[in-house]
Amino acid sequence: MDFMKPETCLDLVNIRHALIRMEDTIVFGLIERSQFFSSPSVYEPNKFHIPEFDGSFLDWGLQQMEKTHSQIRRYEAPDELPFFPSVLLPSLLPPVHYPKVLASYTDEINVNQEILEFYVKEIVPQVSCKAGDQLENLGSVQVCDIDCLQAISRRIHFGKFVAEAKYQADKELYNKLIIDKDIPKIEASITNAAVEETILVRLIEKGKSYGVDPSMKYSQNPQSKVEPEIIAKLYKDYIIPLTKKVEVDYLLRRLEDV
Amino acid sequence: MDFMKPETCLDLVNIRHALIRMEDTIVFGLIERSQFFSSPSVYEPNKFHIPEFDGSFLDWGLQQMEKTHSQIRRYEAPDELPFFPSVLLPSLLPPVHYPKVLASYTDEINVNQEILEFYVKEIVPQVSCKAGDQLENLGSVQVCDIDCLQAISRRIHFGKFVAEAKYQADKELYNKLIIDKDIPKIEASITNAAVEETILVRLIEKGKSYGVDPSMKYSQNPQSKVEPEIIAKLYKDYIIPLTKKVEVDYLLRRLEDV
Repeated sequence: MDFMKPETCLDLVNIRHALIRMEDTIVFGLIERSQFFSSPSVYEPNKFHIPEFDGSFLDWGLQQMEKTHSQIRRYEAPDELPFFPSVLLPSLLPPVHYPKVLASYTDEINVNQEILEFYVKEIVPQVSCKAGDQLENLGSVQVCDIDCLQAISRRIHFGKFVAEAKYQADKELYNKLIIDKDIPKIEASITNAAVEETILVRLIEKGKSYGVDPSMKYSQNPQSKVEPEIIAKLYKDYIIPLTKKVEVDYLLRRLEDV
Repeated sequence: MDFMKPETCLDLVNIRHALIRMEDTIVFGLIERSQFFSSPSVYEPNKFHIPEFDGSFLDWGLQQMEKTHSQIRRYEAPDELPFFPSVLLPSLLPPVHYPKVLASYTDEINVNQEILEFYVKEIVPQVSCKAGDQLENLGSVQVCDIDCLQAISRRIHFGKFVAEAKYQADKELYNKLIIDKDIPKIEASITNAAVEETILVRLIEKGKSYGVDPSMKYSQNPQSKVEPEIIAKLYKDYIIPLTKKVEVDYLLRRLEDV
């Protein structure tokens, strides 16, 4: 995807290609996270007394990262959204003048708090190697979590490009559905059950291929570092539905921006 | 590896297991980096005018990361070393009391500047997807670079555990070699050509297995995201030799700590 060339960003073939590539980043991230314990201390608000800070150890790390990354203009990119918009700092670099591709309210559609919630409650317990804390690894856990959260957030909010491409392809249909607030029909129009099924099958393949040391493949117990079925289930239960929510939310407001 | 149990850290089977696992992290990191251009602007000193800062854009990012990570005690861990020791901040967390496993001068053996140099000069041009800058991705490049550098640094400095384990296993031999400053014999004693060969073969397998979308494996052109031979060559030419240098440097000073 080249955000400097708007026509490439709304080409569904390019979008699908980018989404497939993001799966690799997410699978790699989950495999890295699986080295560590579930580490509830990382997620418990104010478990550690960090001066002038209110939140979990993960929140603190995410905020430091977002402050730094905002200074190198991460959140100017149309495919990046912060978890803590209030902490961002001015960029140290000259701005990139991205051509307008998405609607002007796009940054207001931000489901990162929902991502944080299902990540901590559902993903961490299923991918971590063991329940409980291992105090000397809390920092490593936080680093892995931030990588996973940023990759998942990018994947889910990329739905906006899908939504905009669909809108551009049939404005008449969508204008009517939007005026009628016909959410079920909007949802149906952006759902492709066959593509979703392909994603889940491919994720299981990726989980197996990336999660097993290939030199151990023919050993007696070539266990994958993360159960491939868990990765597919996370997509099915959280990532795909939240992507659709982003698409619907984006489309419902689309007439604000005509 | 459980640094709280010193006996496990000097068990060569555990050390080898940890080193093999680190290969995955390094291969994942290189695959992630391969999405982006070589991006010379990231490495050119003072290419961007960052207030009160002298260095490259990568140096700036690394320093921000190391400041933050020092606050969560990353560099208290015996297997982590900063690239910029002078920027570290006090930890916000209670200290972890690691049992002493390595010699007391261990943090002085730090080859991170050499790692930075070969990474920028040799790795980046070979793994990036294209030569040149793509200005809107400089931040993403920096993020990938930091991940790769930290993973490579951890891998190389892990040689200290190998060196200490070998020292413990035959103090008499090493004491003599150290007094004689017999570097060639120390080097020979820590070299296992068969193991090195196995590493290179395994890296090629990992490059293929982790770098190809498995659903494309039987397509006409199942190209790996990073040439597996390049990954093996990076190990052969840089990572393995620098690990040995760390081991030799560590052993040569070992009598300071008796």
